[in-house]
Amino acid sequence: MDEQNTQPSPISPPDSVSFIALGGLEDVTRNLYLYEYKDQILIVDCGIGFPDETMLGVDLFLPDITYLQELIKNKNKKIVGMLLTHGHEDHIGGVPFILPQLNQDFPIYASPFTARLTNEKLKEFHLPEIVKTVKFEDGDVRIGDFTATFIRVTHSVPDSANFFIRTPVGNFFHGSDFKFDLTPHDGKRTEFNKIMKASTEGVLCLMTDCLGTEREGHSPSEEGLEKSFEREMKDCTGKFIITTYSSNVARLNQAIEAAEKTGRKVCFVGRSVIKVAQIAEEMGYLKIKKGTEVGINDLKNYKPSQLLLFVAGSQGQDNSSMTRIANNEHKEIKLGREDLVVFSSDIIPGNELAVSALSNTISKRGTAVLGLYNRGNFHVSGHGSQGDHRLMMSLIKPKYILPISGTYKHMVFYKDLAKKMGYGNKDTILIENGQIMHFGKNGYQYGKKIETKNVFVDQVSGEEVEHYVVRDREKLAKEGVVIVMAEVRGADGQLVDRPEIIARGSSVGGLKDFSGDLMKEIVRDLSNKKEKVTNWAHIRHIIGDTAQKQIYRKFRSRPLVLPVIIEV
Amino acid sequence: MDEQNTQPSPISPPDSVSFIALGGLEDVTRNLYLYEYKDQILIVDCGIGFPDETMLGVDLFLPDITYLQELIKNKNKKIVGMLLTHGHEDHIGGVPFILPQLNQDFPIYASPFTARLTNEKLKEFHLPEIVKTVKFEDGDVRIGDFTATFIRVTHSVPDSANFFIRTPVGNFFHGSDFKFDLTPHDGKRTEFNKIMKASTEGVLCLMTDCLGTEREGHSPSEEGLEKSFEREMKDCTGKFIITTYSSNVARLNQAIEAAEKTGRKVCFVGRSVIKVAQIAEEMGYLKIKKGTEVGINDLKNYKPSQLLLFVAGSQGQDNSSMTRIANNEHKEIKLGREDLVVFSSDIIPGNELAVSALSNTISKRGTAVLGLYNRGNFHVSGHGSQGDHRLMMSLIKPKYILPISGTYKHMVFYKDLAKKMGYGNKDTILIENGQIMHFGKNGYQYGKKIETKNVFVDQVSGEEVEHYVVRDREKLAKEGVVIVMAEVRGADGQLVDRPEIIARGSSVGGLKDFSGDLMKEIVRDLSNKKEKVTNWAHIRHIIGDTAQKQIYRKFRSRPLVLPVIIEV
Repeated sequence: MDEQNTQPSPISPPDSVSFIALGGLEDVTRNLYLYEYKDQILIVDCGIGFPDETMLGVDLFLPDITYLQELIKNKNKKIVGMLLTHGHEDHIGGVPFILPQLNQDFPIYASPFTARLTNEKLKEFHLPEIVKTVKFEDGDVRIGDFTATFIRVTHSVPDSANFFIRTPVGNFFHGSDFKFDLTPHDGKRTEFNKIMKASTEGVLCLMTDCLGTEREGHSPSEEGLEKSFEREMKDCTGKFIITTYSSNVARLNQAIEAAEKTGRKVCFVGRSVIKVAQIAEEMGYLKIKKGTEVGINDLKNYKPSQLLLFVAGSQGQDNSSMTRIANNEHKEIKLGREDLVVFSSDIIPGNELAVSALSNTISKRGTAVLGLYNRGNFHVSGHGSQGDHRLMMSLIKPKYILPISGTYKHMVFYKDLAKKMGYGNKDTILIENGQIMHFGKNGYQYGKKIETKNVFVDQVSGEEVEHYVVRDREKLAKEGVVIVMAEVRGADGQLVDRPEIIARGSSVGGLKDFSGDLMKEIVRDLSNKKEKVTNWAHIRHIIGDTAQKQIYRKFRSRPLVLPVIIEV
Repeated sequence: MDEQNTQPSPISPPDSVSFIALGGLEDVTRNLYLYEYKDQILIVDCGIGFPDETMLGVDLFLPDITYLQELIKNKNKKIVGMLLTHGHEDHIGGVPFILPQLNQDFPIYASPFTARLTNEKLKEFHLPEIVKTVKFEDGDVRIGDFTATFIRVTHSVPDSANFFIRTPVGNFFHGSDFKFDLTPHDGKRTEFNKIMKASTEGVLCLMTDCLGTEREGHSPSEEGLEKSFEREMKDCTGKFIITTYSSNVARLNQAIEAAEKTGRKVCFVGRSVIKVAQIAEEMGYLKIKKGTEVGINDLKNYKPSQLLLFVAGSQGQDNSSMTRIANNEHKEIKLGREDLVVFSSDIIPGNELAVSALSNTISKRGTAVLGLYNRGNFHVSGHGSQGDHRLMMSLIKPKYILPISGTYKHMVFYKDLAKKMGYGNKDTILIENGQIMHFGKNGYQYGKKIETKNVFVDQVSGEEVEHYVVRDREKLAKEGVVIVMAEVRGADGQLVDRPEIIARGSSVGGLKDFSGDLMKEIVRDLSNKKEKVTNWAHIRHIIGDTAQKQIYRKFRSRPLVLPVIIEV
């Protein structure tokens, strides 16, 4: 990668801590990091990834834990514990998928809200709810030879944590997703005192969120969004509909506050938002007066102007409540011309077209849309900008910095930023998933690079989808499928008649007429194999191969070719 | 649609002009508009569309001209002429595809650069180069009973025009893509005098670009970008690489100016940019000193710091020169650590992931990337913002406004803007492709809504791709294909054995074992048809249908099911 640092004195166990990301570098999502010391492995986060458009028919993907499984099986290492930074899917969503594959008992620690969300997930998968709650006011957590301090930071979900991780070799600051919001809506501020304590003890390496590093200045506070909500609710003569990230409880509270001031009842619509609201309410995080909340079946008892609806689906997901409402396919909720839909969210890269389509569909109903493309203060990012990161560097003063949770361009932005803060070229470490880094008391060294792959999961079946399946789908999607059905005599392995050609999803014309030509080629390729067929798979392979080549030669098209052999 | 205006006195031929968009509303691209008066049809623009991620394996798509063809064939109407506004693909790219389908002789008029680009396209398709050049200083063009004034506006391609179209019923202002750049780099300013003249004569309806209406203020001028280029070229110790929209000649000139000041030679890389540069040079639009341009084979004779390369592929297109260079697959050009890649472009919606991947790939080579995500003044939009549109409304003072060339949300933004400028709810007309509007001397009326569809073209074959092909591909992409191969006796139409099941691109496990169950169902469905088979297609249909239903019932999966019947 960017630079290979070869130190004079090699850094090696037992005087080293090795760090590796099995997910979370380059592609933002499916965060999973290992810290290894002697035979001990500490895992930080266990998230899922969201598929992009090239991952056809895939619902989610996971970090590749092959390396971790091998450490356990062949190297006699053991997992001493897992820490979860915050309750977003790309940090906790992988737990129910991966835990059963690890076959080990170890404690999992998380802040109250994170622990609760993760345990809910485990429950859904009929797994024991084993995540232990650590309150920020609790003391440090000992995990094998590691000690972790939970440090509250501000982010877009309650109880987000960074971890100060002490090891016998040196101290690490695992600075997962954060921004420095000095006026958070819930009043729960970043624990600067703990950050300063970590800094005083000394930080060998800061692993840090880098997602917002292309933005100058400081990320704005959540403060004031409630005023925007209130102003618009006053003006709106119909239903007020907000779609946002379900886990952003502060955002829900801001809108609820505005609803209560303007005399609107509140209804939660859609599985994810109902669930989070319920959990947040039980934990006392959701501030809602008695009588404010109404169920979806009670909506008919109120005038549109008396309602605030929180609806799941800000990313234009198929089948989400917001998409169904926009398409007039929702049983209880119809859009009217007086209604207003506010997107209190931004567009996650890859969802641009889906969100744009959703917004256009709503507009066409004559319903106004706010947020997203137009002015209005309805959303701020939960990630820091350059100013936040400069401040973090200034407070922590780490020896080294390793940006995580961003794409490569974010890492490069971070490196440029660090340079301006006085960090040398080799002080900021840019690596990819699978690159092992060995940290010693005074330096670091590049280790092996492990191959990591995407592990695809199909939500319908809940099963892993093999890579070749996704590759096949790509091919099918682009140029369709051509079935070449050939009758072959078992006695001598030769074609009986011209093969039948069936094409679907292919735009190539004249394929059927091509059968005669194809027959000639197949006959030629089979002729040097004139003997009783003992290996049908091989015959099938030859016919498939020949068909593929000839179709490409003749039509410049590469459909998925499926040879079907009929034994005669 | 938004509002249906039913006027007391119906507006109808011959005292009306009908306007219809066959493409260009809602989806920005493939612009094609008709103005009909009596038996005369005037066409404005004839563009292609760029496929989005749901149009699998499609290279481009076209406006649907079925309605136009029917007007000619069944209603005895004739095309009196075609006007082209400017040289972007979504305004001229459809000409070589659609012209041969119209089977009529009519003149096509365009400004010098637009005409030249379009004729080049026709030449590539071995069609006669029939587009006539109209210089802005030329007088009005008479086209049947229409008269068109070519009005120069500023946009991101030379010689962009708006049209003032006089008809016996009233005057229209066809305000295609523009912004008011008061200091364009080529010095060719918007012809405000002609706009004012049109306004004085009176404009019944302004058809106007609305793509930038979500942005406040005025769009910035191109002015000053050359300074950014110059500053960065001075600092850069390696190759300076710019990727931009090929047709943006002003942008090329700005960078060439900077290259000549900083002692760099200029090389054009990639088919599209080479072609535009050549045309622009021949027409005297490209300002490049003798000796500045070098061929790709001469690059080796210069130090990297002596070079500026213009490379095609700013949208991360597969197989573009920029993508091949980033992936180290380009023969002549390799990226070095001292090189700098500047994206002098923005990201066209839908290309976010491709551009992000391209930028990351470049970063990983250690090559710096500027533009796109980070600060630096390397690109400005060619479309107007709210300020530009307010100015246009103020100058033209049309009775009605009909926003074109934007998605529905842009139209809604425009309508809001127009409201602030004093236009009533019914004065701004928001319609979809295919909606016929009848304009009379003093009003307008909604006509029929024609069905328009996307016409897909596969670039490899140059042929149209039928809708069911794209639908099949969608299905294939999502859940793969399952082939159910059944041996059926011709004598009684019954199954001989359990069907063989072959699946590809499907993540459903256990399909093979499902064969026995499936057989039972098929046997049941076939049993009431126990007779000699005379209609094999029907048998095939029954088997396919049963398989599809049973696979869904059992696995909740909807692959493309292909029944293959073997007659025994």
